[in-house]
Amino acid sequence: MIVLGLDLGGTKCLGLAVEDGRVVAEHRLPTPPAPRDVIDTVVAVADALIAATGEPAGIGIGAPGLVDRHGVLRAAPNLPGGDELAIGPEVAARTGRPVVVDNDATCATLGEWVSGAGVGARTLVMVTLGTGIGGGIVADGRISRGANGFAGEVGHMVIDPNGPPCPCGHRGCWERYASGSGLGRLAREAAHAGLAPRVVELAGGDPEMVRGEHVTAALAEGDPAAIRIVADLAWWLALGLANLANIFDPEKFVVGGGLVVMGEALFTATTQAFNGLVDAADRRPPIPISPAVLGERAGAVGAAALATEAAGT
Amino acid sequence: MIVLGLDLGGTKCLGLAVEDGRVVAEHRLPTPPAPRDVIDTVVAVADALIAATGEPAGIGIGAPGLVDRHGVLRAAPNLPGGDELAIGPEVAARTGRPVVVDNDATCATLGEWVSGAGVGARTLVMVTLGTGIGGGIVADGRISRGANGFAGEVGHMVIDPNGPPCPCGHRGCWERYASGSGLGRLAREAAHAGLAPRVVELAGGDPEMVRGEHVTAALAEGDPAAIRIVADLAWWLALGLANLANIFDPEKFVVGGGLVVMGEALFTATTQAFNGLVDAADRRPPIPISPAVLGERAGAVGAAALATEAAGT
Repeated sequence: MIVLGLDLGGTKCLGLAVEDGRVVAEHRLPTPPAPRDVIDTVVAVADALIAATGEPAGIGIGAPGLVDRHGVLRAAPNLPGGDELAIGPEVAARTGRPVVVDNDATCATLGEWVSGAGVGARTLVMVTLGTGIGGGIVADGRISRGANGFAGEVGHMVIDPNGPPCPCGHRGCWERYASGSGLGRLAREAAHAGLAPRVVELAGGDPEMVRGEHVTAALAEGDPAAIRIVADLAWWLALGLANLANIFDPEKFVVGGGLVVMGEALFTATTQAFNGLVDAADRRPPIPISPAVLGERAGAVGAAALATEAAGT
Repeated sequence: MIVLGLDLGGTKCLGLAVEDGRVVAEHRLPTPPAPRDVIDTVVAVADALIAATGEPAGIGIGAPGLVDRHGVLRAAPNLPGGDELAIGPEVAARTGRPVVVDNDATCATLGEWVSGAGVGARTLVMVTLGTGIGGGIVADGRISRGANGFAGEVGHMVIDPNGPPCPCGHRGCWERYASGSGLGRLAREAAHAGLAPRVVELAGGDPEMVRGEHVTAALAEGDPAAIRIVADLAWWLALGLANLANIFDPEKFVVGGGLVVMGEALFTATTQAFNGLVDAADRRPPIPISPAVLGERAGAVGAAALATEAAGT
């Protein structure tokens, strides 16, 4: 049986055709700027995969935002015009195939759980560190979706009500600290304090132009200031993971998203900070914090798993 | 079929005999100060109920702290000497009956879910506001226990890393703000600032002696300062509930514990603050915040439900 898994993101739509758990085709298109064209793009990716591999049993789609149980994207801060986009019903009508839609981070979690870093875990929390922080939850062997399909919005857990403002309208959301944009903010603070000369140099000399990628580049060179900035980020990441550990008591955490390229520098510092922050660390097995392994394909792999599940096999 | 449900707390052990969902007997004893005597007390409560009602199919026990899946109380900050107490195995050996043990807040959640304020909900979070904050989670129709049985420790979610120190060793845990001890702390801050004269009077004239119960008493008189202190508490309660709403997307919250006696004054202010704090409030049904209805019996009712479940009926 062939199923399609599509991951619609702010910059691209990545699609996979999966046959018996094995990827047999891949196709991608850039996400168009006009909201109305988004559906066209999703359909075009699906059509290209169908042309290459044959009739699918269904189509799974991961979408960036709050997806309700009818497959409607209700709010999508990172997809301009994506609010109230009836992606599931529209793609089903246009392709004539069964379509299931879920949040992109939920799909990535499902992908890593069925064939990535989370295989075999009964209780698992995945966080994806991109512009913001997405999250997905596996509780006692099942994906948790919540009453409206909105579960897992861990990035908007407030960890300091006097913290920096968040585009969501509140202050001190976790993703202001432990995401790509959080890294940029922490780095600019260090830059303005004169504590990150190499990072500023890489940003062209202006502290205000510092972004996360300049830290990543300086880190690759072994710059000590970049190492300190990443340790700072790791502390905030660990603080939120410790909160989630107290709430979920997971077997493991899987961390995905763009920041994972920092590798050991990030994971070692995060694990060390986490062990000092989680409750009752001496009374339970250590909770490993593992990098995701499916990379940019995680969401599409999970979306394909959704389609397989919906096909009842 | 008769089952016993016992709720072991810091001050008392309350036991119920339940037959087909109906309470047929109740017995309580004070919790003894010496850890070794705790098991004697639990067994004495069970024996008294058995003498009154006949042979039970099993015994469920709620215990205050981290309970592992073998029924061992691993850490119990509010039960002196309760750390590493093998309550399940010992009570089973002493009574010769099957025993299941779970965290007291998990039992209270189960109690309210099967026959209290949470009946019918598929996804539910209960918080109990006592000295600290306990929590229990129902996700997609099942109690979430986590990998080691430690899930639901929502009181130690850090909401301000620069906040007041917590006995757990960290700073700014939610229970430093939105619990009975949090209420006392907020009230003492108001008292020291000269903003709560009636509350200080009820505490005997010394701001340092102000406790939560003095606020509750002043509130009952309509004291405006007490109303402001409760609104402050309600804001912190709402902040943590909004975090949990973003994480779980529950159908409803149930709030139990001693602070519930504040009634409308607490619930109206909390609901109002919550609606301004939860994400995407305009894109999902309102999430009601309801008072628990089983009062001090919730834990024992849930413990009896555990025993029923374990008996396989």
